[in-house]
Amino acid sequence: MVVAVGPARTGQRQREDDATGETIAHTIGALLAAGAHDAWVTPIVMKKGRPASTVHVLCDPARTAEIAAVLVSETGTLGLRGTTLERWPQQRDEHTVVVDGQAVRVKVGAGRVKAEHDDAAAAATALGVPLREVVRRAEEAGRRLGGS
Amino acid sequence: MVVAVGPARTGQRQREDDATGETIAHTIGALLAAGAHDAWVTPIVMKKGRPASTVHVLCDPARTAEIAAVLVSETGTLGLRGTTLERWPQQRDEHTVVVDGQAVRVKVGAGRVKAEHDDAAAAATALGVPLREVVRRAEEAGRRLGGS
Amino acid sequence: MVVAVGPARTGQRQREDDATGETIAHTIGALLAAGAHDAWVTPIVMKKGRPASTVHVLCDPARTAEIAAVLVSETGTLGLRGTTLERWPQQRDEHTVVVDGQAVRVKVGAGRVKAEHDDAAAAATALGVPLREVVRRAEEAGRRLGGS
Amino acid sequence: MVVAVGPARTGQRQREDDATGETIAHTIGALLAAGAHDAWVTPIVMKKGRPASTVHVLCDPARTAEIAAVLVSETGTLGLRGTTLERWPQQRDEHTVVVDGQAVRVKVGAGRVKAEHDDAAAAATALGVPLREVVRRAEEAGRRLGGS
Amino acid sequence: MVVAVGPARTGQRQREDDATGETIAHTIGALLAAGAHDAWVTPIVMKKGRPASTVHVLCDPARTAEIAAVLVSETGTLGLRGTTLERWPQQRDEHTVVVDGQAVRVKVGAGRVKAEHDDAAAAATALGVPLREVVRRAEEAGRRLGGS
Amino acid sequence: MVVAVGPARTGQRQREDDATGETIAHTIGALLAAGAHDAWVTPIVMKKGRPASTVHVLCDPARTAEIAAVLVSETGTLGLRGTTLERWPQQRDEHTVVVDGQAVRVKVGAGRVKAEHDDAAAAATALGVPLREVVRRAEEAGRRLGGS
Repeated sequence: MVVAVGPARTGQRQREDDATGETIAHTIGALLAAGAHDAWVTPIVMKKGRPASTVHVLCDPARTAEIAAVLVSETGTLGLRGTTLERWPQQRDEHTVVVDGQAVRVKVGAGRVKAEHDDAAAAATALGVPLREVVRRAEEAGRRLGGS
Repeated sequence: MVVAVGPARTGQRQREDDATGETIAHTIGALLAAGAHDAWVTPIVMKKGRPASTVHVLCDPARTAEIAAVLVSETGTLGLRGTTLERWPQQRDEHTVVVDGQAVRVKVGAGRVKAEHDDAAAAATALGVPLREVVRRAEEAGRRLGGS
Repeated sequence: MVVAVGPARTGQRQREDDATGETIAHTIGALLAAGAHDAWVTPIVMKKGRPASTVHVLCDPARTAEIAAVLVSETGTLGLRGTTLERWPQQRDEHTVVVDGQAVRVKVGAGRVKAEHDDAAAAATALGVPLREVVRRAEEAGRRLGGS
Repeated sequence: MVVAVGPARTGQRQREDDATGETIAHTIGALLAAGAHDAWVTPIVMKKGRPASTVHVLCDPARTAEIAAVLVSETGTLGLRGTTLERWPQQRDEHTVVVDGQAVRVKVGAGRVKAEHDDAAAAATALGVPLREVVRRAEEAGRRLGGS
Repeated sequence: MVVAVGPARTGQRQREDDATGETIAHTIGALLAAGAHDAWVTPIVMKKGRPASTVHVLCDPARTAEIAAVLVSETGTLGLRGTTLERWPQQRDEHTVVVDGQAVRVKVGAGRVKAEHDDAAAAATALGVPLREVVRRAEEAGRRLGGS
Repeated sequence: MVVAVGPARTGQRQREDDATGETIAHTIGALLAAGAHDAWVTPIVMKKGRPASTVHVLCDPARTAEIAAVLVSETGTLGLRGTTLERWPQQRDEHTVVVDGQAVRVKVGAGRVKAEHDDAAAAATALGVPLREVVRRAEEAGRRLGGS
C-alpha cells in the first residue's frame, strides 16, 4: 500500500476512535524513534459519544513521509491532516552537574535552569531518593554554574 | 465463563486501555439498556503512558450481577471494582408544556426548571430552530406553571 | 442577524464556556447533518478556571458559510476561528461480509481491515452478542477477502 | 536573554510537562494582563506517559513579542510554536439591565442574549441568590430590550 | 424547597451536563466559601455523547447539609451522591520567609518545602518577576530555616 | 519525617497542583515498583483554575503504609485520602503463542483472548511490523488454543 503524502509540513494530526490506549502509547514511541521532534495525545469526544484521542506530531518538513507512514502503519488510520507551524526555539546551553556522584545534565536558557528528566530519574533510582530532591539539587548546581 | 460477583453495590468501575472509543460508547448504551441508573466515562492516563478511559456505572444493588455481566462481555475486562455510594435525590415534579405546537416535558424542583433534553431536541428538529431557543422557551413556560 | 464569514476554510473552531454538554452534543450532530466531514470536542480550562469545551469541525471550503451558521445558531457563539489544513486521505476499498446472517461492511486499506461500526453494532444487537465479537469476526472475514 | 520571535501571529502554543498547575493558572492571568485576546489550557499526555498541559493563547499579530516573552518568563519554556488563524467575529451590542437593583451588562447578537459573567456573579454575591437565577433574569430583561 | 440530605459524609459528588463552565467555576468558589475543605472538577463524557463535568467536594461530615445546599442551589442538580473517605494528613509547619522585601509563607513537612501559592503570586506581581522565580527563592529560604 | 497512615485500605488518592508531569509519571512507576496493583492519573481542574492531576492507586490493604510513603516522598503531598473498594477479578488462563518465532503470552478469560502488551510490543520491534498486526495474530493463535 503506497501512502500518498502531500508537501512536507511540520505538524500533522489524526484522531483515533478505534485504536486502544496501548496502541497509541506505542505509536508515540514509534513516532519519536522515526525522528519526530515531539508527539503527544489529547483526549477528545467524537461523534456518537465516542471517547477517543488525537495524536499530534511535530516533525521537520523533510521527514513528513516517514512520519506519516508510521502513523498509518501503527494506527491503521485512513486519514491524516496537517498544517505548518512556526517555531521560536529559545537559546539554551547544556551543562553536566554531579549530584552525590551521579551525573545529571541541565539545560540553561530562557532565564531558567532545568534538569534533564531521564538523568535525574536514573540518579534518583540509583540513590534511592525522590526524583524531586535530585531535580532540586541538580538545578541548584546548574544555577551556580550559570551564575544566575 | 461464569462471572463471580460479590455483594450488590451501587457503584462499579473499571479502567480500559485495550478497548476502543467505539466499544466504550457502545458499552455505555448497553449498560443503560440493562437498567443502570447512569453510566459515564472519564479520560485517564494508565501506566506506561497509555491514554485510556474509566467506565463508571451507577446501579441499584439488586442489579449488580447483570450490570457486571454487561461490562465483562462488552469490554472483555478482567477486573471490576465497586463501592457503595449514598444518594440524596431531590424532589421534583414533571409537567408538559407546549412550544409552537411541540410537547416538551419539564422537570421542576430544587428551585429550578429544566427542559427534558430529548423532547427539546426533537422539537428543535421539527421546528427548525436552535435547541437553545426551544429550551429557553420551554423552561420559561415551566416557570409560569410552577409559579416561580 | 447576518453572519459575516471570511474566505472558505477546512478547519474552524470555537470555545464554549456558556454552553451545556447537552447543547454541545446536539451541535456535533447538527454540524454533521449540515455536511461537515467531521466534528469533535476537547475539554479545556478557560480563564478564571472555567471548565469548557472546544468544538472542532472539519469541512469542505465550499461549505464554510453553512457550517459557521450552524455553530452560531446552535451555540450562540460570538466568535469563530479557523485555518486551512491539508489532508492526506488513504486509499481504501469497501466490501460487505456476513456474520451469522448479518451484513457488515468492512473498509480495507492502509494495510488493515476495519469493520463499519454502525453495521457491527446493529449486528451485535440483532444477534445478542458483544460488539467486540462481531467486529473481530467481520474483520477476519474481510482479511480473507482481501487476501491479506 | 533575548527572545527571538518570528513574524507576528495570532495563535501560539506551547506544551508544558515541567510546569505545575499553579504556574499554569498564573500564566493564563499574566497572558491576559499582557493583552492577549484569550488564553486557555488543554490536558495532554506527553511522551513517557507524562500528564501535561498545552497553553493556548490568541493575540493580535502586533503583540506577539510581548506575549511570547510572558510565556517564556512565566513557564521557562524552551520552545514556542504558532500559526495564523482567521477569526469571524459576530456583531453584537452591549446593554445594561438591572436585576433587583444590580446592574448587569448583556451582550445581544448572533440571535442570542448573554449576561456578562462577572457582573452576574457580583450581583449574585450581593443579592445572595444563585448565579443561575441572576443570569436567567438578566437575559430575560435583555431579550425584552432587544425585542427578540 | 427543602433539601433532604442523608447522614453527613466527607465526600460528595454530582455530574452536570446542563451547567455551563461559568456556573461550575462559580460553584467551586461558593463551595469553598461555604466551608468545604476542597472542591475540584473532572471532565467526563455522559450518555449520548455529552461532554460534561463532575464536581467533587470534600467536607467535614458536620457540614454536609450546607454543602449539599450550595450544590443544589448553584447548579440546580436533582441528584447528589457521596461516600466517606479516610484522610491521612501529613504533619507540617508554617514559616514566613522574605523574598526581596515580600513576605511569603512556606509549609515545611513530608520532607519538603512548599511556598504558599497566593503569597508567592502576590510577591511576583509586586516585584515584576516570574512566579517560578519567587517560588524557587522562597523554598530555598525555607529549606535553610528547616535545616533540610 | 514519620508518615502517620491510618488503617490499611485498597484505594488511595491525592490531587496535585504543584507537581509536574515528569514527577507524576515517575510516581506512577514508583508506586507499581512498590507493589501497587495499579496506578493511574486523571486530569482535573482545582480551585483558582489550576489544571492538575489526581493520582489514583489501588493496593492491597497490607501494603498501605509503603504505598502511602511513596506518594508522600515522590510528590511531597501533604494530604492523602482513601477508601476501600471491592474487586471482582475474572478468571483467566495464561498461554504462550508464537508469532513468526517470537513468544507472546496471551490471557484467556471472560470470553476473550488478550495478548500481553509488552510481549507483543517487543515482538513488533523485533519483527519490524506494526504492533496491531502482532496483537491480531497472537490473539488469533490464542483463540485456536482455547477452542473459542
